[in-house]
Amino acid sequence: MEEFVKQSLLYDFYGELLTEHQRSIYEAVVFDDLSLSEAAADFQITRQGVHDLIRRVNGLLTGYEEKLHLVQRFLDGREKAAEIHRLGTRFFDTGDASCIREILRLSEELSQEL
Amino acid sequence: MEEFVKQSLLYDFYGELLTEHQRSIYEAVVFDDLSLSEAAADFQITRQGVHDLIRRVNGLLTGYEEKLHLVQRFLDGREKAAEIHRLGTRFFDTGDASCIREILRLSEELSQEL
Repeated sequence: MEEFVKQSLLYDFYGELLTEHQRSIYEAVVFDDLSLSEAAADFQITRQGVHDLIRRVNGLLTGYEEKLHLVQRFLDGREKAAEIHRLGTRFFDTGDASCIREILRLSEELSQEL
Repeated sequence: MEEFVKQSLLYDFYGELLTEHQRSIYEAVVFDDLSLSEAAADFQITRQGVHDLIRRVNGLLTGYEEKLHLVQRFLDGREKAAEIHRLGTRFFDTGDASCIREILRLSEELSQEL
């Protein structure tokens, strides 16, 4: 997965566990594309301070995922839901009842694993 | 939802964010049904210490859910997956194509919201 998409997902899931200060600076640099120097000026800390904070936050977010695996769980669930949608569409196109059997299998897995 | 089921879900999602010490005592009391006195003896802390730890852990787990809403998100997703399964079964029983349309709608929601 692309690095930015991965950062976004991790932030989406675990961002609320960060401090307000960490969130503000992280969002400015990672999502609003401020340079380290711009963020340093805006938040009145050193450029090195911004750099360290970004690295620390990336470490925290990755650490939460290593413990909780919620992004992976979410991506797996989303992939199954998309597959169910494809199978439903294919059933309308072809009338092939095996699509429905596969939907039953996937939705059962999903309701247990999610 | 029943209190014990709720505690189990919260622990399932966020337990890894607790310390090893917190997990051991919490599991002993909440899941293995040790009394506070038994846990106190086993872990060589006071009965009051066990009591406080359980209350603190419940607070931590609830706090994570208030920030992250992952249990709620999971329950909503699971309910939609179960509904897809019911609709697939109903389609086999009745041949009613509206079941498939509803499956398409729910699976699309699920792949976006999960």
